[in-house]
Amino acid sequence: MSERIWTAALVVIGDEILSGRTHDRNIAQVAEWLQVQGIRLAEVRVVADEQDRIVEAVNILRERNDYLFTTGGIGPTHDDITVDAVAAALGLEVVVHPEARALLEKYYADKPGGLTEDRLRMARVPAGAQLIPNRMSGAPGIKIGNIHLMAGVPHITAGMLDALTGTLEGGAPLKAETMGCWTAESEVAGILRAVAKAHEACQIGSYPFFREGKVGANFVIRSTDAAALADCAKDLRDALEEAGHSAIAGGI
Amino acid sequence: MSERIWTAALVVIGDEILSGRTHDRNIAQVAEWLQVQGIRLAEVRVVADEQDRIVEAVNILRERNDYLFTTGGIGPTHDDITVDAVAAALGLEVVVHPEARALLEKYYADKPGGLTEDRLRMARVPAGAQLIPNRMSGAPGIKIGNIHLMAGVPHITAGMLDALTGTLEGGAPLKAETMGCWTAESEVAGILRAVAKAHEACQIGSYPFFREGKVGANFVIRSTDAAALADCAKDLRDALEEAGHSAIAGGI
Repeated sequence: MSERIWTAALVVIGDEILSGRTHDRNIAQVAEWLQVQGIRLAEVRVVADEQDRIVEAVNILRERNDYLFTTGGIGPTHDDITVDAVAAALGLEVVVHPEARALLEKYYADKPGGLTEDRLRMARVPAGAQLIPNRMSGAPGIKIGNIHLMAGVPHITAGMLDALTGTLEGGAPLKAETMGCWTAESEVAGILRAVAKAHEACQIGSYPFFREGKVGANFVIRSTDAAALADCAKDLRDALEEAGHSAIAGGI
Repeated sequence: MSERIWTAALVVIGDEILSGRTHDRNIAQVAEWLQVQGIRLAEVRVVADEQDRIVEAVNILRERNDYLFTTGGIGPTHDDITVDAVAAALGLEVVVHPEARALLEKYYADKPGGLTEDRLRMARVPAGAQLIPNRMSGAPGIKIGNIHLMAGVPHITAGMLDALTGTLEGGAPLKAETMGCWTAESEVAGILRAVAKAHEACQIGSYPFFREGKVGANFVIRSTDAAALADCAKDLRDALEEAGHSAIAGGI
């Protein structure tokens, strides 16, 4: 039985990541969330706040994947161009979403200045879009076709992911089992290769590290098939132990 | 005088980032290092350990930029396929580099097993490549044309960047000045837009945050021209103060 694999891509929009000023936290956050939904993150692109670059990434990745997510560039300032860029990518007009306008009116009712023209920018969406609730601040996220536009500020992104939980069709979540050895990965590369070859329903990743003055590596076995995963993990553990490497369950 | 802008792209190779298991630290590290070299990071792609995906990203990005960097996938295990993928992208053979072989022979001389076949994989390079010194562990990085293949483990990547410091031609570093306000960015979006329009040699980024129970935003002005940067920063500070927003130099 060959299982349908659901994939997603993420476009991180923001000069602040490319300049090194801000350390991205959304890649890991979106990746972990997708795992739970049974959707595999297939590719990430970090692009500048330039319409051409956003359009290019959006159009390639939305066609190649079941879902596309973007983070960043949906605020009220002049450098927030994600809505315009995605509308251009899809050949859609930008319109003010009445429900988003109502949300912003309510949110800004008791704030100085009220719903100014700049703030109203956050109600602009590609025509036909739905909203993604934002329980952290006024401006909602946006869903248009298979594209989900989310905020760039990580705790607001997190709230939008929460709102989307359970709403996207996914497959069986990719299960993983980790074990670690205080061994240079080059010493066990042959074992890993042989076990990977014998278990085609599983992938084995090897992640070396240097810690407490010693080298080691964690081995992560991934599969959608729990039985295949358990088999593969047993064989790898046995092969490592047989070669004199103590395998620590759960990783180091 | 229009200045030549040097650009680079980064391809992060690794299922461990896409699975959310490992939080990437190389994007920020490479971005910061490039700033100092006077090279602008124009795009980042995170791709899976799959040859087709690596080839696609490498070929598009190496042509579009002055420099291309990759992190990850140059170790000794079966999932380390960066060298083969880059050689395929360039239409080159993979060969054992004699100097890399000598380095590994020396490094493994006193280690159990010595230079095994798996360890010798780390001496494989696309034909014609040079080595990037690695002072942290045995396996060197690789330079072929405008492409720089580096390790994925962040402290080893850092050592390779150190070794490359000053060896790549760059332009004037992008200078930046930051100021912050305890103000919602939507309140000052009009000011930002007007100042950005009046200072075309500068870009202004607005980065909102939520901290200590309050909203605020940092504004980062970037330019290669120090005088233009100072002018723009002065105008923005004045405009913010005039509108009653206290601008904190250096950001919040």
